[in-house]
Amino acid sequence: MVADLTFYTNPQSRGQIVRWMLEEVGAPYDTEYLGYGGTMKAEPYLSINPMGKVPAIRHSGKVVTEVAAICTYLADAFPEAGLAPPPADRADYYRFLFFAAGPLEQAFSLKAVDFTPPPERRAMFGHGCWEDAIGGIERMLGDREFITGRFSAADLYVSSQLGFMLMFGMLEPRPSFSAYVARCTDRDAYRRAKQLDEQAAEELKAQA
Amino acid sequence: MVADLTFYTNPQSRGQIVRWMLEEVGAPYDTEYLGYGGTMKAEPYLSINPMGKVPAIRHSGKVVTEVAAICTYLADAFPEAGLAPPPADRADYYRFLFFAAGPLEQAFSLKAVDFTPPPERRAMFGHGCWEDAIGGIERMLGDREFITGRFSAADLYVSSQLGFMLMFGMLEPRPSFSAYVARCTDRDAYRRAKQLDEQAAEELKAQA
Ligand SMILES: N[C@@H](CCC(=O)N[C@@H](CS)C(=O)NCC(=O)O)C(=O)O
Ligand SMILES: N[C@@H](CCC(=O)N[C@@H](CS)C(=O)NCC(=O)O)C(=O)O
Repeated sequence: MVADLTFYTNPQSRGQIVRWMLEEVGAPYDTEYLGYGGTMKAEPYLSINPMGKVPAIRHSGKVVTEVAAICTYLADAFPEAGLAPPPADRADYYRFLFFAAGPLEQAFSLKAVDFTPPPERRAMFGHGCWEDAIGGIERMLGDREFITGRFSAADLYVSSQLGFMLMFGMLEPRPSFSAYVARCTDRDAYRRAKQLDEQAAEELKAQA
Repeated sequence: MVADLTFYTNPQSRGQIVRWMLEEVGAPYDTEYLGYGGTMKAEPYLSINPMGKVPAIRHSGKVVTEVAAICTYLADAFPEAGLAPPPADRADYYRFLFFAAGPLEQAFSLKAVDFTPPPERRAMFGHGCWEDAIGGIERMLGDREFITGRFSAADLYVSSQLGFMLMFGMLEPRPSFSAYVARCTDRDAYRRAKQLDEQAAEELKAQA
């Protein structure tokens, strides 16, 4: 079957976040696996994402790249999944999505290579420094159960980012973070996604 | 008058992008100016943005931070301005907004401090490296007049980011970029915003 929705990924990538989102949405999709440094950096995939990176989706002929964009797009394209607040009520929704895609992602990447912005340049860096960004998201989350009144694509993305940082041991497991991540990931769609990616990773390894 | 919309900014900051957006939207707003290192890093502002950074807005009691989030939020909150495609048609819209807020912003900040991700870590960095991110956005833009069929909040944000890079001499003025930026900024709201910020910058300097 050729579905109207194609998912381009590698099971060991940020594509895991989009897999979770796809399982939440529940629409049928085809999966194409791309290999690091191989099919990912060559045509035809470069025409989908000129960055040669996964994940990406194609839905009804339209390509979307960037994990946060894909999650936000899918929440709007499949409103029956109830993963986005109505357009008039998206203050927190967009705030957290863009904070995680910008400053939090920047903090995470730079921490991974041990680069700290020099103090006189922190005014210019969106994340300031690691401590500022982590303190910022902790204070923004406060004691919310979810970012908006109920679980949304923003929780899916933010909890995935925090979950990666916890998993890589970059973030100390403060209860504010680990309880939030546990709450967000306690969902059937998350468990299904995880299983699908684990299975795909094994199959690809066996083929290699 | 106390408007339902407050704009927190410094005229010499990324707040210029939000000023432009506010002028496009046309709703009345109050402006509060914050000083670098001063009022910006203290209460009560830290309760608005725990990052101690501008810009931010408060609209009907709801706070939004992050330039891209504010633009996306305002486009939805004021649909009569016609700056967002309908929710079912946002593939390119979100793709470009998140690409500019994530990889492009990362490329820009790291270039400013002359940091190049080591080749073996580029697979993990959202922007790969400067050349990848600039080549990526150039290819994504292609020969589009605007990102979606017509001028939208995505053009406002992406052209502002590219405009800053051109202004700081970081980006060579390839026609693909400079013509796009010129096309996007040829608007009354842009000119009004520029004038308001220039005037505010002078007034603040005179007071200092
Ligand atoms: N990612 C943020 C960046 C905000 C930002 O870094 N703003 C700068 C001015 S352009 C700032 O307020 N710096 C002051 C400081 O960090 O002390 C956004 O898009 O709004
Ligand atoms: N900002 C992008 C990041 C994408 C990204 O860096 N993906 C990695 C895997 S997690 C990748 O495909 N790397 C392969 C490469 O750069 O060669 C997003 O949010 O989607």
